[in-house]
Amino acid sequence: MKITLAHGSGGKATGELIDEIFAKAFDNEILSQMEDSAVIAGSKKIAMTTDSFVVTPLEFPGGDIGRLCICGTVNDLLMRGAEPKYITCGFILQEGVDTEQLKRIVKSMAETAKEAGVQIVAGDTKVVEGTGGIFINTAGVGFIDENVDISAKKSQDGDVIIVSGNLGDHHATILASRMEIENSIVSDNAPLNDIVHSLIAGGIDVHVLRDVTRGGLATVLKELAGSGKCTIELDETAILVSSQVKDFAGLLGLDPLYMGNEGKLVAIIPENQANQALELIRQAEYGEDAAIIGCVKKSDMDEAGKLILRTRIGGRRNLDILQGEGLPRIC
Amino acid sequence: MKITLAHGSGGKATGELIDEIFAKAFDNEILSQMEDSAVIAGSKKIAMTTDSFVVTPLEFPGGDIGRLCICGTVNDLLMRGAEPKYITCGFILQEGVDTEQLKRIVKSMAETAKEAGVQIVAGDTKVVEGTGGIFINTAGVGFIDENVDISAKKSQDGDVIIVSGNLGDHHATILASRMEIENSIVSDNAPLNDIVHSLIAGGIDVHVLRDVTRGGLATVLKELAGSGKCTIELDETAILVSSQVKDFAGLLGLDPLYMGNEGKLVAIIPENQANQALELIRQAEYGEDAAIIGCVKKSDMDEAGKLILRTRIGGRRNLDILQGEGLPRIC
Repeated sequence: MKITLAHGSGGKATGELIDEIFAKAFDNEILSQMEDSAVIAGSKKIAMTTDSFVVTPLEFPGGDIGRLCICGTVNDLLMRGAEPKYITCGFILQEGVDTEQLKRIVKSMAETAKEAGVQIVAGDTKVVEGTGGIFINTAGVGFIDENVDISAKKSQDGDVIIVSGNLGDHHATILASRMEIENSIVSDNAPLNDIVHSLIAGGIDVHVLRDVTRGGLATVLKELAGSGKCTIELDETAILVSSQVKDFAGLLGLDPLYMGNEGKLVAIIPENQANQALELIRQAEYGEDAAIIGCVKKSDMDEAGKLILRTRIGGRRNLDILQGEGLPRIC
Repeated sequence: MKITLAHGSGGKATGELIDEIFAKAFDNEILSQMEDSAVIAGSKKIAMTTDSFVVTPLEFPGGDIGRLCICGTVNDLLMRGAEPKYITCGFILQEGVDTEQLKRIVKSMAETAKEAGVQIVAGDTKVVEGTGGIFINTAGVGFIDENVDISAKKSQDGDVIIVSGNLGDHHATILASRMEIENSIVSDNAPLNDIVHSLIAGGIDVHVLRDVTRGGLATVLKELAGSGKCTIELDETAILVSSQVKDFAGLLGLDPLYMGNEGKLVAIIPENQANQALELIRQAEYGEDAAIIGCVKKSDMDEAGKLILRTRIGGRRNLDILQGEGLPRIC
């Protein structure tokens, strides 16, 4: 079956689409209220975020837009130290979407939501003209424990920067798919609950967390240097990129420091807890390749906001955020 | 300036777009956290909802996609008796969006958010190929007082149905805009806070609230008859349609009972409070034309789920939900 504009009318066809494809896959008690808003119990501090997903292709090695749209929003909640709880999803379907493909994507969303411990509690579907594209918006709510306070502004002099794994896998996967190049690279798209839980449960005084998505590690750390009013120094030799991604990026003249991931984070941790934090991340799911890659300096305020790469040959290179186009529609 | 794919890269151009257009217009303390999630205080029961907006044209008499996307989500929260508090917005911009138009739309969002008493606390922007279209997803969170319990399942035998005003204005506005017909019809898009607050503050035991959007009054009430396991009887002579909308719909062979609105609700109220509720709605903003249009029957279980129109000439007509296409992209 193909989606038509009738599926966006709000009438019978819309109802059938929702019943057949969405409600079955996402079934839970809150969603089954099927009213204008879902009502959920609440008490603690709330984290709230939103993200739209327009990735092309819709399905790629290691994932699809469904897994991606859950991971992206779950990870954004985790980066404030929140326990992700509830997700809403808004589908914008272009005419001609194949409902078999839509079912696969929705199944992937349901499975990823289960893995990440979140419930999909509300949804909306619109249909627009086009040729079978799918856009998904997810918004999320999570609860934060009283004693947790993680924020981009909290980095301190001497703090250590940890990255949870290799860079560039998701970006390289999307690019290879689009260029129809076959290789063994798969997307790293994953929910990072276990890493964040391990740090908090392990008593680490986490200062900053940020997931490394569009713009890549350099863009993310440059922004953190700005919001933390500090210098961040990176050690080029410590930053890991898999040999496949390195070769692929080299061939195309891309810098893995600016390539996006969808299952990696940077953590900024007090120096005296850095080794313990590294061990906790390495033992957590999706954190086995974690490494210490740099540190925070606040001694020289003229350097505030700078991101400096200590290169393999001993030089110092100032890094800026991503300029220009990058690869569009990687998420 | 026109939007290009570079504005979706996550790098410098994205940052400038956010700073120049979104952050300025939506400025508030929570949004200015500018982190992966907004953190907000919380305590009560939470209502959560989402809606995507794909209306075309983007600007129309009486409103635009910006006003619409705030009203739609605010109204969905209100329909559960929640106080709307926080909104996230996800923008999907097609290449070629004119930034002057985007600024007007964003300004309209900010003004409508202020009118509706909500803060925009998180956002996301993606850019896709295309020809200047704008899609906006809004998700919302509101808090519900302990003693408020409004749900589609709560209708009782004898309850009275009130509609807050004339039908079909938004639908007719969009259709006329698209057909390039000039007339005096303007969209009814509006946030319904005052009507809902007045009912709750006035001590009305509101059983059910539902906003009358895609699919029109008939679709909404047919669905409510199903979820409330009751028959709903409507009095055709009581249902108000403005003369301009009536003429326009007549010309095109449309039935106002199936035409969408964006600033109207139906309330299901105990019979002994119906007149008091009607008075409260009429005195509230956007409720001046409210009318009692029907009642709920639970006496005959064979009739459960039916929507019956008592016609002008004394007949009884069974109404179904909207079949087929309706007018796509009205919201």
